Amino acid sequence: MLISLTTDFGERDGYVGVMKGVMAAIAPGATFVDLSHAIPPQDLRSAAYVLWTALPYFPPESVHLVVVDPGVGTSRKPIAARTAWGTLVGPDNGVFSYVWDAAPPTMVVELCNPRYRRAEVCATFHGRDIFSPAAAHLARGVPLEDFGPPVAEPVRLPLPILRVHENALHGEVLYADHFGNLITSIGRLAWEGAPRRGAQLRFTAAFGAAPELLLPSAHSEVFVAGRSLGPMRRTYGEVAPGEALALVGSEGLLEIAISHGNAAANLGLPLGAPVTVQLS
Amino acid sequence: MLISLTTDFGERDGYVGVMKGVMAAIAPGATFVDLSHAIPPQDLRSAAYVLWTALPYFPPESVHLVVVDPGVGTSRKPIAARTAWGTLVGPDNGVFSYVWDAAPPTMVVELCNPRYRRAEVCATFHGRDIFSPAAAHLARGVPLEDFGPPVAEPVRLPLPILRVHENALHGEVLYADHFGNLITSIGRLAWEGAPRRGAQLRFTAAFGAAPELLLPSAHSEVFVAGRSLGPMRRTYGEVAPGEALALVGSEGLLEIAISHGNAAANLGLPLGAPVTVQLS
Amino acid sequence: MLISLTTDFGERDGYVGVMKGVMAAIAPGATFVDLSHAIPPQDLRSAAYVLWTALPYFPPESVHLVVVDPGVGTSRKPIAARTAWGTLVGPDNGVFSYVWDAAPPTMVVELCNPRYRRAEVCATFHGRDIFSPAAAHLARGVPLEDFGPPVAEPVRLPLPILRVHENALHGEVLYADHFGNLITSIGRLAWEGAPRRGAQLRFTAAFGAAPELLLPSAHSEVFVAGRSLGPMRRTYGEVAPGEALALVGSEGLLEIAISHGNAAANLGLPLGAPVTVQLS
Repeated sequence: MLISLTTDFGERDGYVGVMKGVMAAIAPGATFVDLSHAIPPQDLRSAAYVLWTALPYFPPESVHLVVVDPGVGTSRKPIAARTAWGTLVGPDNGVFSYVWDAAPPTMVVELCNPRYRRAEVCATFHGRDIFSPAAAHLARGVPLEDFGPPVAEPVRLPLPILRVHENALHGEVLYADHFGNLITSIGRLAWEGAPRRGAQLRFTAAFGAAPELLLPSAHSEVFVAGRSLGPMRRTYGEVAPGEALALVGSEGLLEIAISHGNAAANLGLPLGAPVTVQLS
Repeated sequence: MLISLTTDFGERDGYVGVMKGVMAAIAPGATFVDLSHAIPPQDLRSAAYVLWTALPYFPPESVHLVVVDPGVGTSRKPIAARTAWGTLVGPDNGVFSYVWDAAPPTMVVELCNPRYRRAEVCATFHGRDIFSPAAAHLARGVPLEDFGPPVAEPVRLPLPILRVHENALHGEVLYADHFGNLITSIGRLAWEGAPRRGAQLRFTAAFGAAPELLLPSAHSEVFVAGRSLGPMRRTYGEVAPGEALALVGSEGLLEIAISHGNAAANLGLPLGAPVTVQLS
Repeated sequence: MLISLTTDFGERDGYVGVMKGVMAAIAPGATFVDLSHAIPPQDLRSAAYVLWTALPYFPPESVHLVVVDPGVGTSRKPIAARTAWGTLVGPDNGVFSYVWDAAPPTMVVELCNPRYRRAEVCATFHGRDIFSPAAAHLARGVPLEDFGPPVAEPVRLPLPILRVHENALHGEVLYADHFGNLITSIGRLAWEGAPRRGAQLRFTAAFGAAPELLLPSAHSEVFVAGRSLGPMRRTYGEVAPGEALALVGSEGLLEIAISHGNAAANLGLPLGAPVTVQLS
């Protein structure tokens, strides 16, 4: 019985502890694993990225609780979804989109059965009153069907940009990590049908699949927001300290980094900034 | 066997890990839940607030370890207390006061039995040498009586200000959370006897009890440090981004916030700043 | 089955959660304890210090996973080591040196058995693909011998400076903690043979051993980088707020602190700065 937690609550205030207290009262003996409580406030895309990169490493019977919820208190639905990457619990705001592209949900339900909520639901803390009880009841084996009716069309975010065009791959900055590395959408590709110029690529794929185009190559040149970073590199050691570079990171995605430095702080590239790999 | 931890140690140095190591050696299989390790250094009132808002959500058989301890090494007593909200372990410096107002202790003892301490007690780390062993032994079922003699008059902090006066509620800023929201003492009231003007209110009450006065009302005007925030609101959406507002938060307490902003950073209100709700 | 984690990953990105997911899939029911994820990036000496001060408090059957790994992707070996302070898993870069000085390894092996790694090993995330699987398999009882061949000469860092010379103890700043206290190498001494002037001291010793020289004394004067802090003190209260002082901390080591202040931020002393206790 493993329950992971991903929020934008920070760890100062006891809000995360309260959710664990609620869950421990329902599912004694559950193991809690914090994925992140430092998602930038209400940033659904960063949360979607963290979930997409982390969930495949967990036991598939895990429950993943997500509370990044700009619409708390509005009519957005609380949902749970069964996937090959575990059972997901959180708001219906698209935060699960990237996971679903790789591990499509086999069932999505609205969390409305009052048996599996706290008796009083506060309009501003569904994490405590709706999502935590649901996660704990799921962890102790309550069937997904018991929580509420199916949700036919859960909300989905647009998938990250990733296109092949005229000897080039076009993508965007997806996420800035703790080290200041800027992780892009370029990598881990799966062609829809045969690869060809101008094709739209699916964003996600089986882990570990690294098509030839993504291998570091001296015949490539990487551009971010119009600036050249030279060819794709294999290691940080290929550039001088303080110099920017592009290399394939631990998730199989192209990353923009600064050797011994912080790319996010120094390159001025927001999430969504365009990235191109030119092939020659 | 759940043990929660609340400290001002931060999470950088291994001090919290050491306490969990000590406890795991005594109570193998215990589940640890971190409430907060970012209590402002030695800030007993912020710690008291976090405990008061979090503990009712935990299983009542939990043990709650608290090490916010400006008096470590002085003659202040180490104590443990049994309450309806769990068994509390920490220094006798008033940090449990708010909890005790809602869940009065049925027994408080001084932790002096050497069997339940580490053999050498360091004057500056009672968290490791006295409190952690006590919490772990309590979690594995040692009776409270075995730890030491009763403490008749444990230290209590003054309760937060909360008064009714001339069509107005007077309170104070209690806590600044991670989002920069300023949480006040106004809310979750229990009248001592019949409500009447000029009465002193008890601060805490059963959770969920929200007397009529605390409901958002167009017939109210909220003042902080002399500045009007307009009427009590129901949602953030009632004001423009960047504008300050007052609304009832997830704990049933009046909060001062800035829509899409950080009230603590921008309003210059210290803990203890006066807050008034004027009723018309 | 307790597994502790020490990294320089921070807690924002899900990297730590991923390692726990990998371990939970191999060793269901393991208890995870975070020692620190805020080791300064690639700072082996700070990590060595945290391990050395924390590990003796854990159950000796614990597994301690350490990923502070500037050489990831180079030829440095992944290793595991059995000691009286638990089983250690991490890179062969000296991070275990201080522990080993106190609790010498009885066996060190290279982690190369592919049965106990993930099928695909990424060059930049051995924490996920090599170290976490090894820690989890060790926690569930796989013998150390099964992981790979012995490592005869694991890498060791130089031990901290600590010398007796002409009525003085010479040491260095080892670590800056969350409170800004600067912890030095002076303390917890064990003489090699009889104490005498000019002798080299061993750095570590049984916990709690505090030879006479280390006791606070009015007949001492402490100097850091040439500046006098007066005699060794017993408590913070012996100096005025804002004043610097030296006292023996909870680890039995001499610490440089500022009463009600932050010595690391205000004294400008880097790790390695020289510290002297002059005896008269």
